[in-house]
Amino acid sequence: MRTQVVIVGAGPAGLMLGRLLELAGVDATILERKSADYVLSRIRAGVLEQGSVDLLERAGAAGRMHAEGLVHHGVHLSFDGDSHRLDLTQLVGRSVMVYGQTEVTRDLMAVRNGTTIYEADDVTLHDLDGKPFVTYRKDGVDHRIDCDFIAGCDGYHGVSRASVPASAVTTYERVYPFGWLGILVDKPPVAEELIYAHHQRGFALCSQRSLTRSRYYVQVPLDEKVENWSDDRFWDELRSRLAPETADALKTGASIEKSIAPLRSFVAEPLRFGQLFLAGDAAHIVPPTGAKGLNLAMSDVAILADALIEAAVEKSDAGIDQYSSHVLQRIWKAERFSWWMTSLLHTFPESDAFSRRIQRADFDYLVSSQAAQQSLAENYTGLPIAGLPHRQGRG
Amino acid sequence: MRTQVVIVGAGPAGLMLGRLLELAGVDATILERKSADYVLSRIRAGVLEQGSVDLLERAGAAGRMHAEGLVHHGVHLSFDGDSHRLDLTQLVGRSVMVYGQTEVTRDLMAVRNGTTIYEADDVTLHDLDGKPFVTYRKDGVDHRIDCDFIAGCDGYHGVSRASVPASAVTTYERVYPFGWLGILVDKPPVAEELIYAHHQRGFALCSQRSLTRSRYYVQVPLDEKVENWSDDRFWDELRSRLAPETADALKTGASIEKSIAPLRSFVAEPLRFGQLFLAGDAAHIVPPTGAKGLNLAMSDVAILADALIEAAVEKSDAGIDQYSSHVLQRIWKAERFSWWMTSLLHTFPESDAFSRRIQRADFDYLVSSQAAQQSLAENYTGLPIAGLPHRQGRG
Repeated sequence: MRTQVVIVGAGPAGLMLGRLLELAGVDATILERKSADYVLSRIRAGVLEQGSVDLLERAGAAGRMHAEGLVHHGVHLSFDGDSHRLDLTQLVGRSVMVYGQTEVTRDLMAVRNGTTIYEADDVTLHDLDGKPFVTYRKDGVDHRIDCDFIAGCDGYHGVSRASVPASAVTTYERVYPFGWLGILVDKPPVAEELIYAHHQRGFALCSQRSLTRSRYYVQVPLDEKVENWSDDRFWDELRSRLAPETADALKTGASIEKSIAPLRSFVAEPLRFGQLFLAGDAAHIVPPTGAKGLNLAMSDVAILADALIEAAVEKSDAGIDQYSSHVLQRIWKAERFSWWMTSLLHTFPESDAFSRRIQRADFDYLVSSQAAQQSLAENYTGLPIAGLPHRQGRG
Repeated sequence: MRTQVVIVGAGPAGLMLGRLLELAGVDATILERKSADYVLSRIRAGVLEQGSVDLLERAGAAGRMHAEGLVHHGVHLSFDGDSHRLDLTQLVGRSVMVYGQTEVTRDLMAVRNGTTIYEADDVTLHDLDGKPFVTYRKDGVDHRIDCDFIAGCDGYHGVSRASVPASAVTTYERVYPFGWLGILVDKPPVAEELIYAHHQRGFALCSQRSLTRSRYYVQVPLDEKVENWSDDRFWDELRSRLAPETADALKTGASIEKSIAPLRSFVAEPLRFGQLFLAGDAAHIVPPTGAKGLNLAMSDVAILADALIEAAVEKSDAGIDQYSSHVLQRIWKAERFSWWMTSLLHTFPESDAFSRRIQRADFDYLVSSQAAQQSLAENYTGLPIAGLPHRQGRG
């Protein structure tokens, strides 16, 4: 079997890339280790930047998002109970869309015409520097796909980055000394918009999936166990970190999901190895503060799609040659913002008294400065996705 | 002897406070441990915010500054040789004034009519919580001044803060793992405006005192000795940290001063103890990056003058009751900015690879974002000096 591009991973990055390629007439096959149902069972972030919304429109997969997603024009930040609303639309003329990653995945699955092979075992990448091919086993039968390019969209633990010799990759990493304990509940959200709260007991986030389903988080130590957290304990802890009027308005109920996720910053460089290109979580991880993970994957594949289409259709290497250095510029800015917002809002066990006061001053300055709020807002709603340098001005 | 306010310290903070009080008809005596010549021999920063310029005008001491000072509408930031100009006036409608602290001190000395007692030994503060008085020895003779209020403007090592029981003061401190090696030279500055340069070898600053006198700095390890730095070695090191075109344009010569200063962040809280009020370096220290030290002292005494005038003339404690909490808000914002600009531009021995990339991303984001540049510019040219809360709206 032969295809132009093998995409490893059928999460939103792989599916979006596949869709953009097929719209341009470039043939792509997606290989996914898990089943479609498993992919759809993963609960992830739910805040889309304007650039991600635009990309879903380009993919023809925006209909349900516009019908069911919630446009948020603002966001609340609170520090030890002192709460401020940032009006994103007023600040930078952009808003965000609350729409779960699972729904994005489902919509991209629905529009896809190309081949997606789920439950592909033992996916292995071959001959990255020559004429690449990918082998896998499906239902006990071995297969081989020859291709021109491979896109690694298979996440942090995927096979793609692991296929490259360690000596060829430089990695940058920060592991934070805490995790997020998250709970999903079928109750209306406590507020129309998201609330990011710093408290001396730790960070808390009031998020949502819809008008009837809410997602809440509290910062916990890295060694915390989810079994130690009854629903009641979670709600008590969450209330203690919110402004009193918010705590009072909280609609609690039985959790339908409860888990702890660690926080990590990670970037691999470069993102091209011969004919293999990494995108999304295979290339980088951000801590979830600010919800950049999915959005960054979308901007990666938007740029990668342009580069691969140029290579496949125009037979020009200019785009694929620029992909890694170009996309890393935006990645590092998103890493910076996610790191900064994490630093602003969490408590750090190693912080000294001076650092804690600087953290408070950062918040006080932010809520007093139009420029600082614009800076936060332009990052939160998403920095522009610049086209490949040699194509800029070509529309 | 009796006066309404004893001011300890005849640096720019004490002199400005004395001048503002005398203009309002409040009697103040300044006590200074050193001689006037010694005070004028101290070489310090030379960048004035608009608020400091305004205050010198209010003090009637702005004539020579306007004649001889240099208005700078921009500032250059460079990172590993990649140089960008920030147009302060375009960004925030404000500029800065390059005019040496020594000159400010000289001008404030010249306009002062009240009593300044230089070479006052053994200055001692008494009865801060009751009817305060200050004793000192001058030319071997003991003196006592009774007063209503004492203003501690005598710097980090002064007697004022040391007169308060340690248990009554909370201090916040950060000592940076490097110092600034500075050189003064009678040569025209390398550029019309200041250049703040990050380089992997360390920070460098091209500053100036006038069109014919330049001040240059390079970051050095804390344990570095000035004896190890010939002028030639200094110039070579400076050149290596600047963009090539800047290095080539450097006009070098024999140094007329050369010294190493450590970098420190420090804040004491509160700033009122009975009838004693701390201002300027007695209350806080900032690292010199961004030149906030003198400016912060000026905004402290602007607010303290209003509070003391209200107390002395209107017999109202409202202003002095608010002084500490009010002035600390602005102090912490300046501490935050000075810490941030120091963090952005220096190399830190303990930095890991991830931190170094975040530092570079901070610079790349800054030079790509109007909002981020406005934020830097509004801090660099000086945040507004808000009047005491109960007087706001009273003009």
